[in-house]
Amino acid sequence: MPATTVTSGLIATSSRVDGWKVQATKDVTYEIRVRDDVLDVNNTDLLDIGDTTGQVRRFVVVDANVAQIYGDRITKYFRHHGVEHELYVCPADETVKHFETVFDIVAAIDAFGIDRRREPIIAIGGGVLTDMVGLAANLYRRGTPVVRVPTTLIGLVDAGVGVKTGVNFNGHKNRLGTYFESTLTLLDRTFLATLDRRHIANGLAEILKIGLIKDARLFELLRVHGPRLLEEKFQGVDRSVSRAGEETLQRAIHGMLEELQPNLWETKLERVVDYGHTFSPTIEMHALPKLLHGEAVCVDMALTTVLARRRGLVGDDECRRILAVMRSLDLPTWDAHLEPGLLVKALEDTVRHRDGRQRLPLPVGIGDAVFVNDVTAAELAAALEELRGSTDG
Amino acid sequence: MPATTVTSGLIATSSRVDGWKVQATKDVTYEIRVRDDVLDVNNTDLLDIGDTTGQVRRFVVVDANVAQIYGDRITKYFRHHGVEHELYVCPADETVKHFETVFDIVAAIDAFGIDRRREPIIAIGGGVLTDMVGLAANLYRRGTPVVRVPTTLIGLVDAGVGVKTGVNFNGHKNRLGTYFESTLTLLDRTFLATLDRRHIANGLAEILKIGLIKDARLFELLRVHGPRLLEEKFQGVDRSVSRAGEETLQRAIHGMLEELQPNLWETKLERVVDYGHTFSPTIEMHALPKLLHGEAVCVDMALTTVLARRRGLVGDDECRRILAVMRSLDLPTWDAHLEPGLLVKALEDTVRHRDGRQRLPLPVGIGDAVFVNDVTAAELAAALEELRGSTDG
Repeated sequence: MPATTVTSGLIATSSRVDGWKVQATKDVTYEIRVRDDVLDVNNTDLLDIGDTTGQVRRFVVVDANVAQIYGDRITKYFRHHGVEHELYVCPADETVKHFETVFDIVAAIDAFGIDRRREPIIAIGGGVLTDMVGLAANLYRRGTPVVRVPTTLIGLVDAGVGVKTGVNFNGHKNRLGTYFESTLTLLDRTFLATLDRRHIANGLAEILKIGLIKDARLFELLRVHGPRLLEEKFQGVDRSVSRAGEETLQRAIHGMLEELQPNLWETKLERVVDYGHTFSPTIEMHALPKLLHGEAVCVDMALTTVLARRRGLVGDDECRRILAVMRSLDLPTWDAHLEPGLLVKALEDTVRHRDGRQRLPLPVGIGDAVFVNDVTAAELAAALEELRGSTDG
Repeated sequence: MPATTVTSGLIATSSRVDGWKVQATKDVTYEIRVRDDVLDVNNTDLLDIGDTTGQVRRFVVVDANVAQIYGDRITKYFRHHGVEHELYVCPADETVKHFETVFDIVAAIDAFGIDRRREPIIAIGGGVLTDMVGLAANLYRRGTPVVRVPTTLIGLVDAGVGVKTGVNFNGHKNRLGTYFESTLTLLDRTFLATLDRRHIANGLAEILKIGLIKDARLFELLRVHGPRLLEEKFQGVDRSVSRAGEETLQRAIHGMLEELQPNLWETKLERVVDYGHTFSPTIEMHALPKLLHGEAVCVDMALTTVLARRRGLVGDDECRRILAVMRSLDLPTWDAHLEPGLLVKALEDTVRHRDGRQRLPLPVGIGDAVFVNDVTAAELAAALEELRGSTDG
């Protein structure tokens, strides 16, 4: 047995070396800051990042829809501060969430030129946009900092607060991606004022998910105030609704982060936040571009709520209330793509993703969850029939 | 000032929440194992990885050149062990080191199907192949384990022992990539027996780099035994050369790992192992496919050795010895693409890569290095003229 040499995290066996073990630890820190009116020239969050000595330069990627409404304000903001910048307008919906779009972003970064570690890329848009820019930033020179400004509700409570990046590939949702933290995320709900009603509902689906699997109070907030929040777009026209909106956003984000933080790289594949994400990736990609992400998630949750009811995990009344809340939020509980064969295929792909087991989160009552590994095709078909009946699908 | 709530690594300020800080720590461990004859059916390194309950399945990506020679043995190896496998033959040189090749690999993985965490992808080939497969594995479902079997000398001592993945993009060397550790790397020098002389020299360039900037003994080994090692391809025909070959490989790998381990994610951009990698990325891409990676690195080292001599960092005699060792290893010290304009452009791009400063490692004597930030175009042109004169370039 040869002796062992250790140089910090480097372990080599000597004298005839038969190998090395390399050990290292990476500390990741990122910040999520709640800010109203990020584009106000008196707000300097987009400037005060990293090393700001010398000429400040910013490469800014903006969702094409956002640019139509906010493009001028963004340009004025950087001009006002004498920042050399490029505003790169990027299409961003699920149909263009692929690597070609990432390449276009990267080529534009190359043309603008950025110092690898001190000039953050800024992403302003929804979850699709921030997922793609995050991937571009991760890949460009093996990592450049990125700052996110989510402009959609789903971006504010879900895509914009975690560390996942990704694009669709080969007909599969987010098949290629990485874990890459954004240095800073700025949550500015004033952007929601210009969002259409359907995209508000889209974000409410991910909030409802957190309520269902871990936060009964959040579910109640949605049940009582959801329709008004949808109507007022979290802009707080009515004071009591405003307070409910604030609490809803806080609980949704805090709940999400509580689940993500101890499992940032998904070493544990049993994740309650995967609720609604077992069948929906396949449904969403098959229905493309018909269903928004949150809508596909809601269809999945409707199905699995019925499944949970059939197992006695959720009471009849709870099941009715859950489906009613979904409908009150303008969310679909049925889609034409729901058929047994596709669901079985979807489950098989998810099992690959969860390393050989279903690890399927199901609600237990409202506000708790359990993981199951024994869902059968017959059980799925029966739940599907019941859901179809209850929705006249 | 609001109060602060801490949930493990999650810090939120309350009662009106104005943000969250997420902190998490990732532990990375990987192993490099020295093994002769990995493809011998009695060697089970390629099987005993991770969870091996149930049917063992392996997706194996093999460099097209390697497959020609070893394809049958690889197939026999997995058949012998009753392993369900796919041998995916992949072209792998700098001209196809781009994302399209990665997509082909990923599509084949999708068709084969793998459990995300328990079925490692196996990459058998040179540095270009392992860089691309590493990237594919990193991106596929945001990370699947990968095992590398380098078959070239540069793979054994350089590309195969670190954590960098990457592809060329937009005319730039490795412009897109990630840091992603391979769970296991198997170093089997018997593969070198079938490598052509030029590819042995290619790997010797990276070994020489380690000698020049941190290991005078390693330089001496190359000076005395290099030509025989090149001749014998590290196969140890002559016993004293065999011992020198073993020591050469060990010192090169150990020296490399000593530099990588404390700086695995390149948070520190002053890296002595970047020696020879300041001008060479641009030279290599412009000369494509004329120069192999190690050849371009050697041209860069020849130039910067002369530059160091002109600064009095390297003695006249040392400079002569260094250039003589390069030539004795069949390595180029000059290339037609060396001209002042291109070198200035190359340095500018490297400055972006090193975050606004040159951070250019230069040898100090033989076996030590220093970083400089003040190289001028005029100094480069003068060094170039001197090198041209000394090489009749």
